[in-house]
Amino acid sequence: MLMKTAAQSLTEQLATRFGERIRNRLLAPGARLPSVRQCAQQQGVSPSTVVAAYDQLLAQGLVEARKNRGFFVREMAAALDTHAPGAMNQVASAKITAGAPSPHAPVNATALIRGMFHGSSDKPQPGMGVLPPQWLETTFMPAAVRKVTGTRALQEFSLQYGEPAGDSGLRRSLSKKLAGLNVPALPAQIVTTVGATHALDVVSRTLLRPGDHVMVEEPGWAVEFARLSALGMRILPVPRRADGPDLAVMAQYCAAHAPKLFVSVSVFHNPTGYCLTPGSAHRVLQLANEHNFHIVEDDTYSHLAPVHATRLCALDGLQRTIYVSGFAKILAPNWRVGFLAAPPNLVERLLDTKLLATLTTPALLEKALAWCIDQGQLRRHAERIRTRLDLARARSVKLALAHGCTFAAEPAGLFGWVETGVDTDALSQRMLDEGYLLAPGALFHASRQPSTLMRINFATTQEVAFWKVFARLRDAMN
Amino acid sequence: MLMKTAAQSLTEQLATRFGERIRNRLLAPGARLPSVRQCAQQQGVSPSTVVAAYDQLLAQGLVEARKNRGFFVREMAAALDTHAPGAMNQVASAKITAGAPSPHAPVNATALIRGMFHGSSDKPQPGMGVLPPQWLETTFMPAAVRKVTGTRALQEFSLQYGEPAGDSGLRRSLSKKLAGLNVPALPAQIVTTVGATHALDVVSRTLLRPGDHVMVEEPGWAVEFARLSALGMRILPVPRRADGPDLAVMAQYCAAHAPKLFVSVSVFHNPTGYCLTPGSAHRVLQLANEHNFHIVEDDTYSHLAPVHATRLCALDGLQRTIYVSGFAKILAPNWRVGFLAAPPNLVERLLDTKLLATLTTPALLEKALAWCIDQGQLRRHAERIRTRLDLARARSVKLALAHGCTFAAEPAGLFGWVETGVDTDALSQRMLDEGYLLAPGALFHASRQPSTLMRINFATTQEVAFWKVFARLRDAMN
Repeated sequence: MLMKTAAQSLTEQLATRFGERIRNRLLAPGARLPSVRQCAQQQGVSPSTVVAAYDQLLAQGLVEARKNRGFFVREMAAALDTHAPGAMNQVASAKITAGAPSPHAPVNATALIRGMFHGSSDKPQPGMGVLPPQWLETTFMPAAVRKVTGTRALQEFSLQYGEPAGDSGLRRSLSKKLAGLNVPALPAQIVTTVGATHALDVVSRTLLRPGDHVMVEEPGWAVEFARLSALGMRILPVPRRADGPDLAVMAQYCAAHAPKLFVSVSVFHNPTGYCLTPGSAHRVLQLANEHNFHIVEDDTYSHLAPVHATRLCALDGLQRTIYVSGFAKILAPNWRVGFLAAPPNLVERLLDTKLLATLTTPALLEKALAWCIDQGQLRRHAERIRTRLDLARARSVKLALAHGCTFAAEPAGLFGWVETGVDTDALSQRMLDEGYLLAPGALFHASRQPSTLMRINFATTQEVAFWKVFARLRDAMN
Repeated sequence: MLMKTAAQSLTEQLATRFGERIRNRLLAPGARLPSVRQCAQQQGVSPSTVVAAYDQLLAQGLVEARKNRGFFVREMAAALDTHAPGAMNQVASAKITAGAPSPHAPVNATALIRGMFHGSSDKPQPGMGVLPPQWLETTFMPAAVRKVTGTRALQEFSLQYGEPAGDSGLRRSLSKKLAGLNVPALPAQIVTTVGATHALDVVSRTLLRPGDHVMVEEPGWAVEFARLSALGMRILPVPRRADGPDLAVMAQYCAAHAPKLFVSVSVFHNPTGYCLTPGSAHRVLQLANEHNFHIVEDDTYSHLAPVHATRLCALDGLQRTIYVSGFAKILAPNWRVGFLAAPPNLVERLLDTKLLATLTTPALLEKALAWCIDQGQLRRHAERIRTRLDLARARSVKLALAHGCTFAAEPAGLFGWVETGVDTDALSQRMLDEGYLLAPGALFHASRQPSTLMRINFATTQEVAFWKVFARLRDAMN
């Protein structure tokens, strides 16, 4: 709610609010602002205040007026940069696949990431992809950092580039950890990266050439679609079912396009929470053998899952599968420690890609992480988190159902895939006004399309306050 | 020199030595091993020992015998991985441009990086690209880490993804630092990266599409050629002269290929040590305006240079130039903190590329670095290093000249560009046997070609011991 203050008029506050959203891509280029009347009603201000605020945005070059159609967010890059018209990276305008920018496409692939810190709100954020900081607070994490940053140690590892494949201590710890998941990886098969995101990037850049076809589960994580698209790959979306990817669709793709790679989240799939069944895993691997493609298995949610969950890499023994994971969902999102474990014949090429992209990775955080694993601290912490998440999920599911939502997938893991009955792109704009960042369903598709689904984070949707606001705004849309 | 020990026979030692070099790419796929007779002579062992060692390498699948031609390092990826035959990343086999693997091409683009840690030698390494760890030892660096890793602070920044563009405190410090170089960059124009390497990677991925033409100075840094090539770009090598790039060649390229980007090291160019003159800078910028290309200026050696050195970004005011730098050459190579400063209209696109590739970067090291800058510690440390490097350079130059070398470029900065009179690829293999890693001239060309030049690091070539070995092995080749 806007409130008149001595420092800022209502007009300034409104202009600032929209300006920030545009800069943070919560309103993407091409998106239409609400009409003056709508906006005045939503914000509880007079139409003249809205007109004045929109005028400020016009003067700042952030929006443009189109005759009889209203105000639209400007295509910043296109407007200001006449050079490099169609460069590799067109994520900016949310055009993940070709097509005109849609006024229904306000939150883009990187906006969620940006939105997570520019929050002018301290409410729990239902659209977030990570656990709230309070959940991740531990005494062992700071202890781990102190352990590895004695003056002598710090100088020893800071003053040289470090091991190309990553800290060897950490790679030994990870090798043992993977053995516990029945994924057989020697330390020499492991390469550390700047989070799981970087590991997926290294894999794509090593195995694919621009124009290559790659199969990706849909719904799926927006950043994955956007990155593959920016690298010039052709995305083949594979419907994700409760038991695994749609094998008939995969078989058709294989026959028609000879895809080189399949990107899959087997355990607690994002956004559905589905887990792969052993039977489906077996058939996916059969298909990979028949049609000679690699599989990269993104096991980002590994720590939230029981160890006996089915993983393609465990069945396959890292023959044509590459395992990717990280610690953003369990320990410290900002540490950016991830890794990949690959077949022996691919490791050197993957390592070369890492070196060309970043040279080495910081050993300080890798050594601190190794300490957390070796002391058993991470395992015990993960057990506590799983228990807490189970409770949070139960509460969130109950509240969601009580507020008229249904679940498009059986609730499990960190995320719920929720049917709202209204367009979630439009809803997310209104929720932003109330300080809530949503993850609209359209974000999880390879080609953006209107959706009535949204992804919720069970850890941040346990409070009735959110659901009340949600229900009120949703009902106002019907 | 090989010495018989109780633990390992001479044969095993020799096989281990070659095996390590092959794994670390100091002997690239396709390279020919010395003949049995040559090897026996060089290593001071009997021919039968060499034959037995080569047999072990054969059994390990590391080399193959070609009838009447000798032993060759196997194409590991090709041999073991029948899938993905021509993927984006073919750096593995040192084929930076198309062409058959050459038996004269033993040290590849990433081998130098790998070689810097797998050194079985504790001698100063003339081929290294960074200052020796002893030079970088300071008391303020560990103090900086302690300052920013109090329990409360650590939890505050570790438990969320962090600011997308990088720690705002560091970006403010960098903004002031750049102002001192007359490069006008607001904190909002700065994006932190995983070292300068990652900044260059982000720039290429944002501004270029596969197949685009990009101008790069030649000689130049191997990793840059290799990365652009792996991304599918077409490299146009621009001869680097003492005063700047060859403008006539650039003009021809512009007319014929409409390149999108020029990659340049203005100050203490690697490997020549050349510095751009103001007149040349002005003409380069004129050309960029006429032909509408961007320039990325890699100022990696910034801290070793006087502040008044000519920089394209200072003349241009970040209009069509992008500034890139890092701290690997002055503070802590393993921290991997680099950054770019870009024109306002490019920042958002560059930031999106960073987010898609790695999400955020670790704040711990960025905050520690900001402390080092803000306290004036980094500046004073850099002054001390410059004085020390001046002395080292004077000594190294004297020794090089005394041992029959000449300089292809006036000695300046960190690196000397040295004329040896013999093929430095062949020489570097022999020097490895004595525990010295060289940087052969062939590494610094876009299309690999035999060279009698080598790059030396003035900090690590001050000892007569190295030059004596060098002269002995060189003379044996004549």
